[in-house]
Amino acid sequence: MIDFRPVANIIGWLLVALGVIMLVPMLADLVTGSLDWRIFLISAFVTVTAGGLVVLATASTDASGLTLRQSFLVTTLSWTVLPIFGGLPFMLAFDHISFTDSMFEAMSGLTTTGATVFAGLDSMPPGILLWRSILHWLGGLGIVLVALIFLPVMKVGGMQHFRSEGFDTMGKVLPRAADISWMLLQIYAGLTILCAAAFLLTGMNAFDAVNHALSTLSTGGFSTRDTSFTHYSASAHWVGIVFMFLAGLPFIRYLQFINGSYRPLFSDIQIRAYLRWTLYAIGAVLAFRILREEGDFEPMLRETAFNVVSMFSGTGFGSNDVTAWGDFPILVLVVVGFIGACTASTGCSIKVFRYLVLFEAIKTQLKQLVYPNRVIPMHLDGRRLDEEVVVSVVVMFTAYVVGFGVLTVLLSLSGLEMRTAFTAAWTSICNVGPVWGAEVGPTGDLDGFPTFAKWLMILAMLMGRLEMVAVLVLVLPRFWRG
Amino acid sequence: MIDFRPVANIIGWLLVALGVIMLVPMLADLVTGSLDWRIFLISAFVTVTAGGLVVLATASTDASGLTLRQSFLVTTLSWTVLPIFGGLPFMLAFDHISFTDSMFEAMSGLTTTGATVFAGLDSMPPGILLWRSILHWLGGLGIVLVALIFLPVMKVGGMQHFRSEGFDTMGKVLPRAADISWMLLQIYAGLTILCAAAFLLTGMNAFDAVNHALSTLSTGGFSTRDTSFTHYSASAHWVGIVFMFLAGLPFIRYLQFINGSYRPLFSDIQIRAYLRWTLYAIGAVLAFRILREEGDFEPMLRETAFNVVSMFSGTGFGSNDVTAWGDFPILVLVVVGFIGACTASTGCSIKVFRYLVLFEAIKTQLKQLVYPNRVIPMHLDGRRLDEEVVVSVVVMFTAYVVGFGVLTVLLSLSGLEMRTAFTAAWTSICNVGPVWGAEVGPTGDLDGFPTFAKWLMILAMLMGRLEMVAVLVLVLPRFWRG
Ligand SMILES: [K+]
Ligand SMILES: [K+]
Repeated sequence: MIDFRPVANIIGWLLVALGVIMLVPMLADLVTGSLDWRIFLISAFVTVTAGGLVVLATASTDASGLTLRQSFLVTTLSWTVLPIFGGLPFMLAFDHISFTDSMFEAMSGLTTTGATVFAGLDSMPPGILLWRSILHWLGGLGIVLVALIFLPVMKVGGMQHFRSEGFDTMGKVLPRAADISWMLLQIYAGLTILCAAAFLLTGMNAFDAVNHALSTLSTGGFSTRDTSFTHYSASAHWVGIVFMFLAGLPFIRYLQFINGSYRPLFSDIQIRAYLRWTLYAIGAVLAFRILREEGDFEPMLRETAFNVVSMFSGTGFGSNDVTAWGDFPILVLVVVGFIGACTASTGCSIKVFRYLVLFEAIKTQLKQLVYPNRVIPMHLDGRRLDEEVVVSVVVMFTAYVVGFGVLTVLLSLSGLEMRTAFTAAWTSICNVGPVWGAEVGPTGDLDGFPTFAKWLMILAMLMGRLEMVAVLVLVLPRFWRG
Repeated sequence: MIDFRPVANIIGWLLVALGVIMLVPMLADLVTGSLDWRIFLISAFVTVTAGGLVVLATASTDASGLTLRQSFLVTTLSWTVLPIFGGLPFMLAFDHISFTDSMFEAMSGLTTTGATVFAGLDSMPPGILLWRSILHWLGGLGIVLVALIFLPVMKVGGMQHFRSEGFDTMGKVLPRAADISWMLLQIYAGLTILCAAAFLLTGMNAFDAVNHALSTLSTGGFSTRDTSFTHYSASAHWVGIVFMFLAGLPFIRYLQFINGSYRPLFSDIQIRAYLRWTLYAIGAVLAFRILREEGDFEPMLRETAFNVVSMFSGTGFGSNDVTAWGDFPILVLVVVGFIGACTASTGCSIKVFRYLVLFEAIKTQLKQLVYPNRVIPMHLDGRRLDEEVVVSVVVMFTAYVVGFGVLTVLLSLSGLEMRTAFTAAWTSICNVGPVWGAEVGPTGDLDGFPTFAKWLMILAMLMGRLEMVAVLVLVLPRFWRG
């Protein structure tokens, strides 16, 4: 039997923290004189109480280390329990928001997906808007921690390849984890403050600057405006492009960077491929648009770069109506969404590293076919690539592909038309954000989606965010046995 | 350096055979008094001469065995050179048929894809119609031979898993190949004759019965009618369902069956999964239709079963306008097309076996995550599954998925709208046949497609038919070296 107490203890502490953080949007409402501050106080009280009770009930526990199974449980349970409480303010704030909708919005927040069931953002109380951005930011922080601390020992998605980077200390994970978390928090917060300051300089008001910085660094995509970035100036777009791209880099490189190792950041093969592919995608879409559209070069370049980086990093901010560009640009955006940024970033989807591994596996296999009697080892970035890593990557990739197919069919069965089902499956399993289709509201909201579709997307966002495999393992009967 | 002579010798002999077989449609034209018989005589003359010259030029060759590289070359070159000559009658018969169109039609024929650039089939001379069906039938025969004799030694797509079935005799492949080919030819011809007889009994005329039998057993999909199976009776549909399904079974089981081993045919895990998944798909679509449509049960069941089996086996015959059923049925049809029938059948796409391997890999990987220190072997059908087979399957699967994405984007770039680009990529890489979209002609023909799109599809049909990897290996520079 698995000892659930350390797991519950951690979840309890996370709930307490979540409840305390709810006081931030409460303050925002108080400052601006919005009466909504009370819902945050209530939500905070409920969340802290629930978390506190769990912590007390499991206090006797030795939380100095987690077993492998406990790690899997903590990961999935965090992203299951926290959205339930994180959605409380939404349910209390609006009469028409059901449990489904609040769960959807909070899951979309904590998984940094950014798909929303809300319309009329411009007239919403500041507390609610800030809470959505904070959920993104917390989710982004959480996922980088999981990627740096948990996934390498859990061997999910080939992350064990990065164990030798110095973050391979399970068993005694927590003490080490505290160091990493602290450094990471500084970097993440620092970049967010930089981003907010840059947005301020472009003429964005302070509230919008903070909110968009929170959802940029987390590659989340929630905005405080129904029109998202279309509302802002050209310079705000350029700032967005830079920081969305930065949010998609492996945070481990930033950690090394501030510890004095500058080289890894600039010589990382994954970062180079990510940059190269981003430029290819921008170039292809830009060339297509130049041949078909009239207009100035700068806006065309800017909007193209903004949307490519937005989808590639999995942020999902919109600027301009991309569907007007034609089908080819949309397909490029969908494809880069299926790729996703770098591992151990706040970005989502399959990620550049896995494609590099898959391409290396294909290349090696082709060589192997020509020389059937030679043993041809695989390499990535000058380092030997373990067969185990390849299998792990491949299993994750297959789970994404098959999961995407199944999800599209089920979403269509829920009543969505094909294009909507397709993009909704893509946006939720890759945690991107936008959905295109007839059932999407005029501001891009998914309020009109059938309840069954919303729950499918909630599950898909969760699974996609935790790299499929980390959730799937819980379905295995023998996970719970012995 | 690779010795090209044995390769050229085999291609030469195949051309001679192709040329001789062109006399069959010539006879059909002569019998019916169509003046088109002359184009077949000319084409036959050109083809036999070209093939004969190649054979003579390489006559000194020792063709008793092929090296691995020569096998790869023979495979891809057969499906590249034969369509060029196989398309001659089309070019000569119609003024408006370009080299692109004739190549498209012949490639679609020999790869058993069944997508067509021809409209107005009902009024075409019988020779041309018969030639299209014959191309299918030859392509189907060829692909089963390749799957039984070449792929297991070439280790493409995990086919080495079947080496122990007794077809693992490279080096001395040709003598053994002759036995297998002869047995296979008997089975294939026997099933085709049975199918034609059954079609006759349903009231189809003799010419149509023969043509449709040829394109059913090859899972090709060319019809002699613009309206395809909508033209025929309910009983013809049922006959089609049975024989399309049979064409999707591993022909190795038929070989064992006529050699006295009855058990393998009925206990094959792949056949069982194929049957089960087919029934699931029929059940799901049928349930969906019953809830939404009025009408009798029999036609609904029949049309549903016909279209599911047609897409699953990769035949692509149409009965009824499936797009009227709604989006969910279409998506199910697309998904089963991505699965495909069994290995070593005439069916195409990724195939049930590969999915069974992938699912076993995922299951094993999940177990491995729970027990990181145990070695957990993989099994399929009670037999140990080699890691090598899994990697081989995975590489093929990844190549299909990535290839599909790239192809969709390129097709969209060629000017096709999204839905057309998506289904055209699917139909060509999975060799299914139908395309849905605005640019498709009223009878389902692709005549109006841009030339670039047609060539992309020609390449994709070739690559998909040869399981991607067998073609990709030729792109490797070191294939041609040393
Ligand atoms: K996002
Ligand atoms: K076909």
